Amino acid sequence: MRLAAKTKNISIVLYKPKYPGNVGSVARAAKNMGISKIVVVGENSLDREEMERRSTHLAADVLDSIRYCDAIEEALSAFQYIVGATARLGKARGPFVSPRAEALKIAGLSQNNQIALLFGPEDTGLANDQLRLCHSVVTIPTSREFSSLNLSQAAMILCYEIFTASPEGGVALQAAQKLALASELEGMYGQIRELLTTIGFLNPQNPERWMLDVRHFFSRARLLSREVKMIRGICRKLEWHALHKKT
Amino acid sequence: MRLAAKTKNISIVLYKPKYPGNVGSVARAAKNMGISKIVVVGENSLDREEMERRSTHLAADVLDSIRYCDAIEEALSAFQYIVGATARLGKARGPFVSPRAEALKIAGLSQNNQIALLFGPEDTGLANDQLRLCHSVVTIPTSREFSSLNLSQAAMILCYEIFTASPEGGVALQAAQKLALASELEGMYGQIRELLTTIGFLNPQNPERWMLDVRHFFSRARLLSREVKMIRGICRKLEWHALHKKT
Repeated sequence: MRLAAKTKNISIVLYKPKYPGNVGSVARAAKNMGISKIVVVGENSLDREEMERRSTHLAADVLDSIRYCDAIEEALSAFQYIVGATARLGKARGPFVSPRAEALKIAGLSQNNQIALLFGPEDTGLANDQLRLCHSVVTIPTSREFSSLNLSQAAMILCYEIFTASPEGGVALQAAQKLALASELEGMYGQIRELLTTIGFLNPQNPERWMLDVRHFFSRARLLSREVKMIRGICRKLEWHALHKKT
Repeated sequence: MRLAAKTKNISIVLYKPKYPGNVGSVARAAKNMGISKIVVVGENSLDREEMERRSTHLAADVLDSIRYCDAIEEALSAFQYIVGATARLGKARGPFVSPRAEALKIAGLSQNNQIALLFGPEDTGLANDQLRLCHSVVTIPTSREFSSLNLSQAAMILCYEIFTASPEGGVALQAAQKLALASELEGMYGQIRELLTTIGFLNPQNPERWMLDVRHFFSRARLLSREVKMIRGICRKLEWHALHKKT
């Protein structure tokens, strides 16, 4: 069975874009692929005329409906599945997925979940601070000699892969399930961090180092809402025991 | 077996491009995908600075080696296989091929043949006069509601498909990570079950009911060996705390 991605459930989230022209190009690229929701984070003074010069008036409606947010947590809170795009590889940043493999996942998940495609600023891309909020990280394959895609070119490829993706077999199974919201996951991670600190497992100087590992495997699992509740229930019990221990 | 496209045998031919900025964007998109030969037909006064603003200086070498031709026949004479790109459908213009199907053909043909990817002017695209010189015509799939790709966006998609129609482009990202053995996982589940029983989270009459949920999300994560070790370390700490609690 072939499943078309529900592009109405897919949004592009641009974190601190520097050039309004690029936002316009992204709008045009996305609209061609049936994606028309854009969120801009940490930048609310983008020149409208500059944007529209590159979106063309045909995609001006996408610009009109841009949602502006100050904080990235706020921007992402209502999404169930967040995909970061990065060109920089690094041990703590992965595991990396190809756009095609990711598009297949998204085609399934987008049936019942809100999906965010997160892109960083043109010059630096996403930093680890933003990547740790992602459930998956996509790297667009490029030539070994030259790897310097423009923001809208990267968005073009990801949107195109999603638009043309049709999952087979196993992937479709995940379609019907409702994943936990980013806000639910962050609540859970906060609780886990507290617990692991209480029992002395995390170094209080640098708790995020281990928490990144924890985030990685939970991201891969793509937790359901009820699973998050179960894990938080377990954490509560454990915390109670840890706090009432013999001294 | 799949065959890597020989991108050195592939050229982009731009027929009467109007905007130098677009030529610059095409150069950048192409170079990322290992394609660095561009031919410009019927237009030899493109502003170099405008082009380079969009190619960035990193792809300036592609601009330096642009070949300029007056006539399209001259531009295409040294190619064995010519692929036209068009957004306009029409009986006399097809048959139309998808970028992915075409990329597979090109991967094979480019081993021993010079390939041209032909694009028309931004406003009108290729006319039937140019299309009849093509051996194949590609149409990029777009949303039914909106179909208006920019020249460099169309080139981006075609180059990307060609680049990834090969093991080099597509596969390598998912490096061979070492997953945990079944025996390691079972050890971990045993320890988790014990811990959850100790803290009274599992019903001792039927512990497997909740454990199934635990197994489910860990299975989906496909844990690495070192992650299993980390989880077991956390469990040990938690168990110690639970057993030493005040009574």
